Amino acid sequence: MTVNALVTMLTDFGEEDGYTAIMKGVIACINPQSRVIDITHQIPPQNIAAARFCLMNAYSYFPTPTVHLAVVDPGVGSRRRGVAISIAEGYLVGPDNGVFSGVLSLSPALAAVELNNPEYWLTPAPSSTFHGRDIFAPVAAHLTRGVDLQSLGRTIELNTLVKLPLPELTEHQGMIIGAIQYIDHFGNLVTNIPAVKVRGKSWQAMIKNVTISQVTTYSDSKLGALLALIGSHGYLEIALNGGNAQERLAVNWGDKVEITTLS
Amino acid sequence: MTVNALVTMLTDFGEEDGYTAIMKGVIACINPQSRVIDITHQIPPQNIAAARFCLMNAYSYFPTPTVHLAVVDPGVGSRRRGVAISIAEGYLVGPDNGVFSGVLSLSPALAAVELNNPEYWLTPAPSSTFHGRDIFAPVAAHLTRGVDLQSLGRTIELNTLVKLPLPELTEHQGMIIGAIQYIDHFGNLVTNIPAVKVRGKSWQAMIKNVTISQVTTYSDSKLGALLALIGSHGYLEIALNGGNAQERLAVNWGDKVEITTLS
Amino acid sequence: MTVNALVTMLTDFGEEDGYTAIMKGVIACINPQSRVIDITHQIPPQNIAAARFCLMNAYSYFPTPTVHLAVVDPGVGSRRRGVAISIAEGYLVGPDNGVFSGVLSLSPALAAVELNNPEYWLTPAPSSTFHGRDIFAPVAAHLTRGVDLQSLGRTIELNTLVKLPLPELTEHQGMIIGAIQYIDHFGNLVTNIPAVKVRGKSWQAMIKNVTISQVTTYSDSKLGALLALIGSHGYLEIALNGGNAQERLAVNWGDKVEITTLS
Repeated sequence: MTVNALVTMLTDFGEEDGYTAIMKGVIACINPQSRVIDITHQIPPQNIAAARFCLMNAYSYFPTPTVHLAVVDPGVGSRRRGVAISIAEGYLVGPDNGVFSGVLSLSPALAAVELNNPEYWLTPAPSSTFHGRDIFAPVAAHLTRGVDLQSLGRTIELNTLVKLPLPELTEHQGMIIGAIQYIDHFGNLVTNIPAVKVRGKSWQAMIKNVTISQVTTYSDSKLGALLALIGSHGYLEIALNGGNAQERLAVNWGDKVEITTLS
Repeated sequence: MTVNALVTMLTDFGEEDGYTAIMKGVIACINPQSRVIDITHQIPPQNIAAARFCLMNAYSYFPTPTVHLAVVDPGVGSRRRGVAISIAEGYLVGPDNGVFSGVLSLSPALAAVELNNPEYWLTPAPSSTFHGRDIFAPVAAHLTRGVDLQSLGRTIELNTLVKLPLPELTEHQGMIIGAIQYIDHFGNLVTNIPAVKVRGKSWQAMIKNVTISQVTTYSDSKLGALLALIGSHGYLEIALNGGNAQERLAVNWGDKVEITTLS
Repeated sequence: MTVNALVTMLTDFGEEDGYTAIMKGVIACINPQSRVIDITHQIPPQNIAAARFCLMNAYSYFPTPTVHLAVVDPGVGSRRRGVAISIAEGYLVGPDNGVFSGVLSLSPALAAVELNNPEYWLTPAPSSTFHGRDIFAPVAAHLTRGVDLQSLGRTIELNTLVKLPLPELTEHQGMIIGAIQYIDHFGNLVTNIPAVKVRGKSWQAMIKNVTISQVTTYSDSKLGALLALIGSHGYLEIALNGGNAQERLAVNWGDKVEITTLS
């Protein structure tokens, strides 16, 4: 890698306590030339599904190579593995709990190791609660300095990497049944139904018995109206013009969404 | 511009979903030497007035030249124009909806273009919901690499740039009537009455029939007391020592403030 | 110092209003090569104890030399001193109100000055409300450019630096009585009882008459269970597996914690 390679960080640590700054300090000690971009530290605590979705949507917009460091880690201190994975666009570093399975569904793993070589850790005796500081940040920094993936630990079989199950997607007689896979900061509901399923067709969405019409853009609807559109992530989305669709519809992650194609 | 020029970012995207990181990734792909400073991503959703005020207060503290990228964009996907504007201190990039009108009231536009040249976009087919990623961030990055303003699109008349109307300011017999133009994170009430109006005079403020005495600094008042002072923005401000003036006075954006000069 | 030295920033300004960005702009004007890492801007307003704890925990993870800029400053505009302090690992810059006393308990002050030389300020007439912008950020930036500590102002006696009193810690017949010195983003309760006090021993915690068993790691307890462990800060901590211990126990900063060593 180039010595000034980017590292991205995604955690559920919040911004209050300085935990993420400590990880950046650790990285700066190992590679003073490295640059860090925060994806987010506001993942709902221990919500691996949200982390998986955010990282899947963001990773492809960064330069190649970039090291993506993701620490949403309810199993820290247990036997869950820490891993580093190489993909065409760079590296993924974090716990093996499914947080990377979205990225890997789009960009297959080329190689993966279990992080069991303490030579690349902050300390040979890591804490049981903060592997982000003690293991993952140092490993990410060493990767930006050109350390080989294989040096970081034991090679593991790619098919043993943990996958997070996605909500179901079924199709039947012009109807597509999917689910809410992500709810963003604005209360927009991102389904797991890709845009390609409705390309060139008219369609409408139904959620909790509310029928919602398709628009091309927010400004095609009235303030206060529910609308369905192809979101910037490439999935069908339900939104509320000028408001919060999650609150209006009282829905949550995983709730069912039905799409009817009309032509 | 110099290749390591700064880009600032101001949005209402929040920090939760990774949208702002995607914009930074897009910038890093186009100009790996560029550096980004976040002004804020916590503008209340679609509050162009807040965005206008924050950017107006911040822009002059950055090195010349800096590219200021502001995306508070309720009209995204509609016919509102995307613009790039040159000023003495650098460039402004974002929607033409008044978000830049505060800066432009202090540092006049030198030239402006409508962003209609897809050559400098992320994709010739931008999404209808995320011009920050698809148009504005790439344009800002290209400006840091020395691309000419005129290359980015069609030149537009400066007097057609959208202005956001400010609250009224009237003066009558030693009384100045203005309004709250911004409420900050601490609940401090920033009026639109500039410090120069009262320089060298004693004065007091009245808001919602509460009279508030002038102090030079917080520590001149008691804990729990309302106070009026010349704030760090250069406007008269109402604050609550150790508390939140907005909550105490139950006021909001645009509410009337009366200043009486006493000597 | 090296011209590309790091500056860290810790404030209670929040992220909403652009105040911290203005400080970064000021730094970039003085030293375009400097790099800034945010420790946090979410310190509870005017909570010097929280600021002291966060900075004490973070500072040692940054490269030497780093300039740590901390602005939690309820006394701004009063006669409290602004200071710059040199330590083995770099510099501390901010108000002399105890915010640095945690760091200094671990890394003694080598020299300190009162910031009374306006030559290194943004303006010889600083505002009475925003010394972060007008004094502290410029001073930090000048330090990264190699300006001598002594140039910044009048040398002061190290024993006059303000110390923040810590909660008491007492030991009696195998029982250690301490207090909650910090509550983090997750609601974890960090005591002031260092891990060395119980090393190699079994122990349990009592808080508000609730007895809490010691575990090595979160995954040794059940979801929904209270647990006591050695936290990543090196202090005994009380946490709730999958939840918020502060809410469950209805406790606050400074509340008493008793540790009984069992073997």
